[in-house]
Amino acid sequence: MNYSRPYYRYSLPILNQTLIAATEAANQFQFKMHYAIKANNHTRIVQKIKEYGLGVDCVSAEEIEFALLQGWSPTEIVFAGSGKTYFEIQYALEQNVGVIHCESMQEWEIIQEIRANTASKTQIALRINPDLKVETHAKISTGEKHHKFGMGFHEALEIIAIDRSIIGFHFHIGSQILDMQYFESLSLTVRNLLDTLPNNFNLKYLNLGGGLGIDYEQPERNPIPDFEGWMMALRSHLPTSLIPIIHIEPGRSIVGQCGTLVGTVQYLKHLDSQPLAILDVGMNALMRPALYGARHQVTAQSDQLIRVNYTVSGPSCESSDTFGDNFLLPVLKRGDQLIIHSTGAYGASMSLNYNLRRPLESQFIEEEIKTSFKKTENFAEVA
Amino acid sequence: MNYSRPYYRYSLPILNQTLIAATEAANQFQFKMHYAIKANNHTRIVQKIKEYGLGVDCVSAEEIEFALLQGWSPTEIVFAGSGKTYFEIQYALEQNVGVIHCESMQEWEIIQEIRANTASKTQIALRINPDLKVETHAKISTGEKHHKFGMGFHEALEIIAIDRSIIGFHFHIGSQILDMQYFESLSLTVRNLLDTLPNNFNLKYLNLGGGLGIDYEQPERNPIPDFEGWMMALRSHLPTSLIPIIHIEPGRSIVGQCGTLVGTVQYLKHLDSQPLAILDVGMNALMRPALYGARHQVTAQSDQLIRVNYTVSGPSCESSDTFGDNFLLPVLKRGDQLIIHSTGAYGASMSLNYNLRRPLESQFIEEEIKTSFKKTENFAEVA
Repeated sequence: MNYSRPYYRYSLPILNQTLIAATEAANQFQFKMHYAIKANNHTRIVQKIKEYGLGVDCVSAEEIEFALLQGWSPTEIVFAGSGKTYFEIQYALEQNVGVIHCESMQEWEIIQEIRANTASKTQIALRINPDLKVETHAKISTGEKHHKFGMGFHEALEIIAIDRSIIGFHFHIGSQILDMQYFESLSLTVRNLLDTLPNNFNLKYLNLGGGLGIDYEQPERNPIPDFEGWMMALRSHLPTSLIPIIHIEPGRSIVGQCGTLVGTVQYLKHLDSQPLAILDVGMNALMRPALYGARHQVTAQSDQLIRVNYTVSGPSCESSDTFGDNFLLPVLKRGDQLIIHSTGAYGASMSLNYNLRRPLESQFIEEEIKTSFKKTENFAEVA
Repeated sequence: MNYSRPYYRYSLPILNQTLIAATEAANQFQFKMHYAIKANNHTRIVQKIKEYGLGVDCVSAEEIEFALLQGWSPTEIVFAGSGKTYFEIQYALEQNVGVIHCESMQEWEIIQEIRANTASKTQIALRINPDLKVETHAKISTGEKHHKFGMGFHEALEIIAIDRSIIGFHFHIGSQILDMQYFESLSLTVRNLLDTLPNNFNLKYLNLGGGLGIDYEQPERNPIPDFEGWMMALRSHLPTSLIPIIHIEPGRSIVGQCGTLVGTVQYLKHLDSQPLAILDVGMNALMRPALYGARHQVTAQSDQLIRVNYTVSGPSCESSDTFGDNFLLPVLKRGDQLIIHSTGAYGASMSLNYNLRRPLESQFIEEEIKTSFKKTENFAEVA
């Protein structure tokens, strides 16, 4: 019997490969990336992302504070969110974050009120609701008119007519989008809106949000998301000749595949329907299945050849604490470790301390050590 | 504009009235109550519950540790849960908690293994899955055969045949049950099972779990749950002549109605469908609407006569962060406070620190101060 506690395991080689792919595509298509830090805020992960030159997308005062502590320059921070409080806006302006994405006339009025008393270098962009329907999970589609996010374009036109300091616009259509046609539609919608801007408006900033999905079904076959396809789609109607730099906010696509959750089979039950494996980890550490009905690939570390369909559940006293049914796995026994894949995004950052359970430990698969030079004592000391 | 931060407000008078009603019913029908501490673990609340003589129902080692720190005697603690780890069982046995509710033959084997090396006073009861269907939310119904909870009665019979130290049985059919016929069905099912026990089995312990619902629709009209109806239903086929004391595990029914969540309207949006109020608090502090689709009553502190249907949402960047539609409220303006009712259970204890948001503060409405004596300076000093 293996008695190890459940933990998150992050692969730095995969994170690196992902960041290389993302930054290469961003250079090719002229995008400036801001990492959506709500996806994962482990210090080692955000430091690696910062090394690659990404800025950061924050949605709370606490995230701004954390990003500053992690060493990001205020100008590299964008602040978004549909419910920013007075104090959060005041804090962001005092810290001179780069850009605030203002979501409504009411929010603009608050920003004006605070700017009147606070000298701030923060610039203001307006979040537009593009009214585009995206076939993703209802709870993470955000760009339709009936959603709480952003303002109508007419409201944005009213604001730019009275505030000449507005630098541009922000859009975001939702999360976990794998069909690039939605990003093409966004590109076209934005192009059409920009064409109707008043002639005297000088567009200095365009942010098309995040939303690039990852392959939850075959994470090992497709560890690196299609950054190139995403950015090409976003550029389809917005060429660099028109907009030299476009800002985007990847979160899940950067960190999703580098993380796995490792749990141990505690009990096996043979129910009428199909056998059930109860793990020592569940919704406390990973809310996505219970909250969104999301399905993560589950595999076992075993060379057993016979495969059986299992239901895999967590330990909480709730029927919702399950990873789902029909996981084809080798015949399991107590103590077998199961790997829940693609849990680098919205895993640890969304964990509960329900039942007073403590947050999980994180382990890291380190990068391959380059051995092209001989270690010296001096070098070891520096390391 | 009101700039206060969101907070949980707990009414100690309501908690007191609830505990009086619960303990009166328990005395009348001869129940021993164990408070399901996962519902709310605020120190002031659990201390008040402890004052009334309730034991405590724990579902993790951390909850046991907390209950001991709060001053509960180990014998007053029951330990339940479908995914107890080896270490959790070992800890519970070392601490000599009163009873462990064992959920399977596999778990019984682990308990045996640990008992062989650990002198422990902990007694063992078996959790039976009664295979009763309850019309409550699918995610919080737990007593059907296909659920992960408990063992079949045949498995329990196997265990009691080889382990003469088993003291009895535990059952739990689900949560938020308002129709007492389900508890009557449980009573009948349990009675029938007990009648088939071998003659040489000496039943010393019967625990019928929790599940009593509260009135989420009209919390102000019905602040006190129907403890008497619940206990009468549980006794319908299990009279005191047969079972002198029955154990039960109320959680939600004890603390649900004493808590309210207080948030402030940050923004109002006039969407096509109905106006939207965005609060400074949402799923971070209260997961139930996003997780279960649960609906909490929302009221405003306002004497406005005109009423309008609002959608009320939280600040997170997710469409799931909403309290729902069609809340009939006075015409709202920024800074208005909204009260989200019935949030004493599974509110703070299930909160996320997503977006790095900190847990909310708790405020308490104190008990009415008895003024039958004149305050003296000495008294003030003591206070």
